[in-house]
Amino acid sequence: MSKLRVAVLGAKGRIGSEAVKAVEAAEDMELVAALGRGDKLETLEKSGAQVAVELTTPASVMGNLDFCVRHGIHAVVGTTGWDEERLAQLRGWLVQSPDTGVLIAPNFSIGAVLTMKFAQIAAPYFESVEVVELHHPNKVDAPSGTATRTAQLIAEARRRAGAAPAPDATVTALDGARGADVDGVPVHAVRLRGLLAHQEVLLGAEGETLTIRHDSLHHSSFMPGILLGARCVVTTPGLTFGLEHFLDLN
Amino acid sequence: MSKLRVAVLGAKGRIGSEAVKAVEAAEDMELVAALGRGDKLETLEKSGAQVAVELTTPASVMGNLDFCVRHGIHAVVGTTGWDEERLAQLRGWLVQSPDTGVLIAPNFSIGAVLTMKFAQIAAPYFESVEVVELHHPNKVDAPSGTATRTAQLIAEARRRAGAAPAPDATVTALDGARGADVDGVPVHAVRLRGLLAHQEVLLGAEGETLTIRHDSLHHSSFMPGILLGARCVVTTPGLTFGLEHFLDLN
Amino acid sequence: MSKLRVAVLGAKGRIGSEAVKAVEAAEDMELVAALGRGDKLETLEKSGAQVAVELTTPASVMGNLDFCVRHGIHAVVGTTGWDEERLAQLRGWLVQSPDTGVLIAPNFSIGAVLTMKFAQIAAPYFESVEVVELHHPNKVDAPSGTATRTAQLIAEARRRAGAAPAPDATVTALDGARGADVDGVPVHAVRLRGLLAHQEVLLGAEGETLTIRHDSLHHSSFMPGILLGARCVVTTPGLTFGLEHFLDLN
Amino acid sequence: MSKLRVAVLGAKGRIGSEAVKAVEAAEDMELVAALGRGDKLETLEKSGAQVAVELTTPASVMGNLDFCVRHGIHAVVGTTGWDEERLAQLRGWLVQSPDTGVLIAPNFSIGAVLTMKFAQIAAPYFESVEVVELHHPNKVDAPSGTATRTAQLIAEARRRAGAAPAPDATVTALDGARGADVDGVPVHAVRLRGLLAHQEVLLGAEGETLTIRHDSLHHSSFMPGILLGARCVVTTPGLTFGLEHFLDLN
Repeated sequence: MSKLRVAVLGAKGRIGSEAVKAVEAAEDMELVAALGRGDKLETLEKSGAQVAVELTTPASVMGNLDFCVRHGIHAVVGTTGWDEERLAQLRGWLVQSPDTGVLIAPNFSIGAVLTMKFAQIAAPYFESVEVVELHHPNKVDAPSGTATRTAQLIAEARRRAGAAPAPDATVTALDGARGADVDGVPVHAVRLRGLLAHQEVLLGAEGETLTIRHDSLHHSSFMPGILLGARCVVTTPGLTFGLEHFLDLN
Repeated sequence: MSKLRVAVLGAKGRIGSEAVKAVEAAEDMELVAALGRGDKLETLEKSGAQVAVELTTPASVMGNLDFCVRHGIHAVVGTTGWDEERLAQLRGWLVQSPDTGVLIAPNFSIGAVLTMKFAQIAAPYFESVEVVELHHPNKVDAPSGTATRTAQLIAEARRRAGAAPAPDATVTALDGARGADVDGVPVHAVRLRGLLAHQEVLLGAEGETLTIRHDSLHHSSFMPGILLGARCVVTTPGLTFGLEHFLDLN
Repeated sequence: MSKLRVAVLGAKGRIGSEAVKAVEAAEDMELVAALGRGDKLETLEKSGAQVAVELTTPASVMGNLDFCVRHGIHAVVGTTGWDEERLAQLRGWLVQSPDTGVLIAPNFSIGAVLTMKFAQIAAPYFESVEVVELHHPNKVDAPSGTATRTAQLIAEARRRAGAAPAPDATVTALDGARGADVDGVPVHAVRLRGLLAHQEVLLGAEGETLTIRHDSLHHSSFMPGILLGARCVVTTPGLTFGLEHFLDLN
Repeated sequence: MSKLRVAVLGAKGRIGSEAVKAVEAAEDMELVAALGRGDKLETLEKSGAQVAVELTTPASVMGNLDFCVRHGIHAVVGTTGWDEERLAQLRGWLVQSPDTGVLIAPNFSIGAVLTMKFAQIAAPYFESVEVVELHHPNKVDAPSGTATRTAQLIAEARRRAGAAPAPDATVTALDGARGADVDGVPVHAVRLRGLLAHQEVLLGAEGETLTIRHDSLHHSSFMPGILLGARCVVTTPGLTFGLEHFLDLN
């Protein structure tokens, strides 16, 4: 079986350099190009890359994807900064190149994606749901974007299923004790030296609790998701938003 | 909206008496009969029950289901002791009564069922998977049936996905340190005073771990699953094996 | 060896009736009296009780202890409502009966007492400390009294050791996300159906974390502490406040 | 206040190079020498070091300590390979230099040391105790040395207190399910990609459990213990074995 020819854009960055190593280590892949700032996109075409892993910046990503789509190179995109306007533009390009696939994923950690998915599935079946996220103390926002998104997805799943609000008899509380309210789901943020990025979804019903915990211990945790994306995007024309669409959830 | 008319068979047992209370407490249900040993099945028919919750013994269950199916009474069955022969016999009865539904579930805890389902979904995406179950010290078998079943489902999901065996460089080990081997999945059994029934599925990949933990703190945890079964079985003719088929897992 | 002769006051109450069973089950003890409301204290004297386990109400406790101390009966007290005035009065009685011992304990759960003690010992050695308590959703106050007390003891231990405030770079936070501030220690309160009473103390330093978790699953958890108190109080004249003084912490 | 003058021996090694950075970052310390293989010990004397942090190899450590003790330089030793003979020889040297202190510690992680200490304190008060350790899958031995040592200390503490064996009604078990038996304490070893080094001590009594968990996420976790050792050893003449002796455990 011939190997998948993969290029990395943004190959000198923190995540990009990890991606270079991960592609090199994957038995079913060949690293055919590793471009940093200033390198010409023509290199990409000449390399015969089938997939480009795009890990640059919001300022570069659109130009890079325009080039990829025009040349029929599939793309796996970790760069952030997507809004409706940019997505519409990208979709327009893909119409012109109907065999090309692009995956954009806000989170390439398979564990994080599964945590969110499992939380959504389970939330309607439990009376109570709360989220606790735990991070290193240098983090400037609380709660984390992932925890906020998780709570929103939980709230949406419960609304759709017609679930009642979680019971809470609290009458007297110190300010902040019951956490932040995200669409009716309490979210608690712990900051602790020694931690990296962790999240717990706690679900409770009569006589039982279910806890889904994701521990992210190193940013290398994005690599399996990036490789999975590269393998799947070559047979998935058009735009795919979110790694969950490439996971078999049945 | 008219209430669902529910009967409980085995109403004096430990789980049965909980079921009686749960049906009485459910706003969308009416308890129309509660039969114990020696009570006549005719009471069931006269009560106008739409669903019978069957929580008796392997010695009684076949007679009870024969009666139910013949009278078009749907059934939710928690009694154990099912083998291929019994299932075939039940399926034969259901052919004669094609509008009647029977749900047999080895486990009515929604948390336990979701834990197994999530473990199966996640298992192929992680290099390593192990199971730790924790129970009260009066338990006579180790590991628990649920943990063994969970490990088997994990092994099956990994096999189907072509996942490699989990890495393990152990050269020197004390007997038992690495747990029991269930189809290649290590299973560890903790026995601790103060606990009831708990299970953790630990999944690990490069840079991240995912943990799914189920804590069963009281046998009332079966009640939401039994009520859910009763609500769904009335519109699901034929035999359904496993509560997971009544959960929305998408 | 002769058995310790123990009486229970408040024997009909929720905790008192558990205490009666626990004393009866203890091989080194003999239950010589079990008094409920209206029973005469003279019974206590006649029973030859060496220790009285006092589990009544703030309205009864002073009269009961006055009687016990005057008759040289040691006491283990779980009744609440102690203030300086009451303690001073009790100390006065004990001066008149210098061989008699009284143990008053706000918490008879050995696990809870050890959690607080360990949290105090460890707190000065870690940069970060936070407390997460988790309870059933019928609880009316947040955080729990135990969590508040634990946080205060942590703060005190850190102050005494000259520990710096925990690092926290949070700039943008949703209201409540970072928990309640108890003497500088963040305390988070989770309310979840299925839980009883649980507490985690999370400590973090460069490259490591230490977590001390106490799960209280049934109020029978007070019994080992009450029996330990009864065994120790008979050789500890005077007033002892807090079960920790009867634990060997070295 | 003048700074503590600290030298590092083995400064090029994995732990040694971390120690160099940690000493440089400590406000109350000055790094006066950093010796690697081949560097002369005379440098140590000329540097005016008050304390040497010894992180070399079993082949070098005795020579280094001989030199340190003869020159009145205190030492903090992380190098392994100690037996009775070596300890006796070192004690002999210290007799000749009665003002000099040497700390040898098998583990400089304060979290690990406290976990062992807390486990010992708590073990006699609970009916059941088990240990679960979790490590990366490249580890060659199971259970870990720390887990084995923890179990031994637990067993010793229970023996001393006359505690009964933990209850266990297991009749039917798969091989290995109940873990390894270390002096009567079950020890379970999990191997999971993504993990580093983790340990849980689980204690259970009637109605409650206590869990002490240590997560080691980076070998920088040894640094606070090494710095603490350096600060304390200068005022503690003679041989100290084990970091716990420098922790305030009351």
